[in-house]
Formats: sequence, structure tokens, C-alpha cells
Amino acid sequence: MNVYIEPIGKLINQFTKLPGVGAKTAQRYAYKIINMTEEEAAEFAESVINAKKKVRYCKICGNFTDMEVCEICSVRDTSLICVVKEPKDVLAMEKAHEFKGVYHVLHGTISPMDGIGPNDIRIKELLSRVSAGGVNEVIMATNPDVEGEATAMYISSLLKPLGIKVSRLAHGIPMGSELEYADEVTISRALLDRKEI
Amino acid sequence: MNVYIEPIGKLINQFTKLPGVGAKTAQRYAYKIINMTEEEAAEFAESVINAKKKVRYCKICGNFTDMEVCEICSVRDTSLICVVKEPKDVLAMEKAHEFKGVYHVLHGTISPMDGIGPNDIRIKELLSRVSAGGVNEVIMATNPDVEGEATAMYISSLLKPLGIKVSRLAHGIPMGSELEYADEVTISRALLDRKEI
Repeated sequence: MNVYIEPIGKLINQFTKLPGVGAKTAQRYAYKIINMTEEEAAEFAESVINAKKKVRYCKICGNFTDMEVCEICSVRDTSLICVVKEPKDVLAMEKAHEFKGVYHVLHGTISPMDGIGPNDIRIKELLSRVSAGGVNEVIMATNPDVEGEATAMYISSLLKPLGIKVSRLAHGIPMGSELEYADEVTISRALLDRKEI
Repeated sequence: MNVYIEPIGKLINQFTKLPGVGAKTAQRYAYKIINMTEEEAAEFAESVINAKKKVRYCKICGNFTDMEVCEICSVRDTSLICVVKEPKDVLAMEKAHEFKGVYHVLHGTISPMDGIGPNDIRIKELLSRVSAGGVNEVIMATNPDVEGEATAMYISSLLKPLGIKVSRLAHGIPMGSELEYADEVTISRALLDRKEI
């Protein structure tokens, strides 16, 4: 005899696909869903569908948006570009309320071990943006790990010949950790202390 | 400017409704959904809807089922009834693979502080089952807290006059744990309930 009836078992299985969710946590989540009203469950399901359907990449910076060009690219100072690895890093930066420029999301970092080269991430899109003119400074905010540092150095070596100032978030962010988990104060400080590289 | 675009913000908001999920965890879950394929997200959403739609209460024991009468009530020894507070407690018991009887889910425990009296939980349904005959023993497996103990005592006082054997799950030191880490109440209880070996 199965411990779970089929619809509950299936839902638990879906929840275990979320990061860090094991069988026990998934079970708690599933029971919470079953204890919701039918409307609440429908709203929950709809949010999942909508997030997937409506969210796409900004055609300029590559961040998540529900428009053609994201809100940040539309209204902010385009002379200052902050380069990050992933969309969630934009969020981490934004929460510090310190940065007034725009972003460029690479969607990865150069990692020969995983077979990811410069052409597999959005580096040429960054070069086009910079070549189009009007950019004074590019801030590299990739993670302070091996891949992040290497990617920052590589991009810097491409941008400097174009006469662009390239800087790096100051080390204030603990080495070996990830930008996503840094606190706001640390990120603010790191932004203020950025150094030209 | 909002940190999240609307479809992501809504999904994060939905995830925070799950037990123990804060803003940061909800954000991680939401990004996982966005990184799924459209089919995967649809399947996820469908599981939520289905679990809510298909799951109902067994008309005998009150446990979750997708049929009229649950699988356990259909095939197992009905002379032995284990009384639990919630459907998830049935799961906990089933995982022990020890109990061969059927269940009765109270959907709560008597708690005057929260305004929950004997008539607000499924006690009369239990009395009907027992009155119908064929029941030899009722095992009280409500939680070992004030409300659980009180509920067990109350139900026991109703069943005993009917000539039904009523028992309670043993309390004591959890298997595999260490005495050093057991709390005083548990140790006292284990000492009082000691068994000759």
C-alpha cells in the first residue's frame, strides 16, 4: 500500500523539485495546499503559470521583465553599467539602494571546467552596448569566486582598449560566498569602495 | 520602483504562504519556477489544483482520500481503531509499518483556550463507529501535549462505559536518542512507565 494517495504524492513530488526541499518539507507544503480554499489553491497555481508565461528577458540588459525593455533600462542612468552573473544578482544589488545605473546580466560566467566559454554568455551583447557609446564606466559585480574573477578580468581586458573605465566591487563581500546571500550593508559598502582594474 | 516585477512578486507572495517559507526562500523557489520549462511549470500548477480538487475526507475515518472510503478503511482490521489529531499523523503512524488496524482522524483536539470544544472535532463520529459494534480496542495517539492528553482522557471517559478497551501510545525516551538530551518531563514519564525486563 502506498503511503500517499496519488494526487498528494504527485504534489509532494513537484515540491521536491524546489531548491532545498526534501520529502518532509514537501509533505508539509502539500498539506498546506490541501488546507487552502479552492480559490487560494487556484490563485497559487495561477501565479506559477503566470510567472512562467509573462516573465521574459529584457532585450537590453537580459534581466527578467514582463515588458520588452525592463523598468531599470527605461529610466536609469545608462552611462553606468553593472555586470552581474544572474537575474537574482540584480535583485541583491537593487536591495542595497546604492546603485543608480543599469545592469547587464551575463547569464553565467566563463567556466572551462563546465565547458562554458566567452561565447556562451552575454559578453558580445555587452560589447555592443558599450560600442554604441555613452557608457562611462562598467562595474564588474560577478561573484568573488574563481569563475567570477576570471570573467571580470576577461571582460575588463576587452573593454579597456575601448577607453572605458572598468571597476570591480570592493572586497567587503566575503570571498567564496555568493552575491545573492550578501547583506545590504555589505553590498552598499562594496559598491562605494569599487576599484578600477 | 518595485524590486520585483509583478508576476514574480505575486509568485513570491504565494510561496510565502507555505509553512516556514520567508521572503528569501520564496524568492529562490520563484526563480526555480521561472527556470523550469513551460511544461514543467504547467505540471507543477496542475498538481496544486488536482491535490485540492481530488482530495477529500474518507467518510469513515476522516483521513485524506481520493475515493469515497479510503484504502485503509477498505482493507484493514476494523476492530482496532487508532485515534489521531490530523491526517499527517496517519502518515507518521503508517511509516512505522507496525499498526494493522484503521484510523479515526479528529481534525483537531479539545482546546478551550482556542474555543474548540468536544463538538468541534470528530468525536461523535468516533462514538457512532464504536456503537456500531465490532471494535475491540481504541488506541489514543493524540500528541503528548496538554490538549492531546485532555482529549485522550475525555474520549476514554466516553468509551469505557461502552466496554471498549482504550489505550494510549507509550511515552518515553525516543529510540536512537541519548538520555542526556531528553527533557525532564520525558525522563519523568519514562521512569514512571518503566517496564520489567
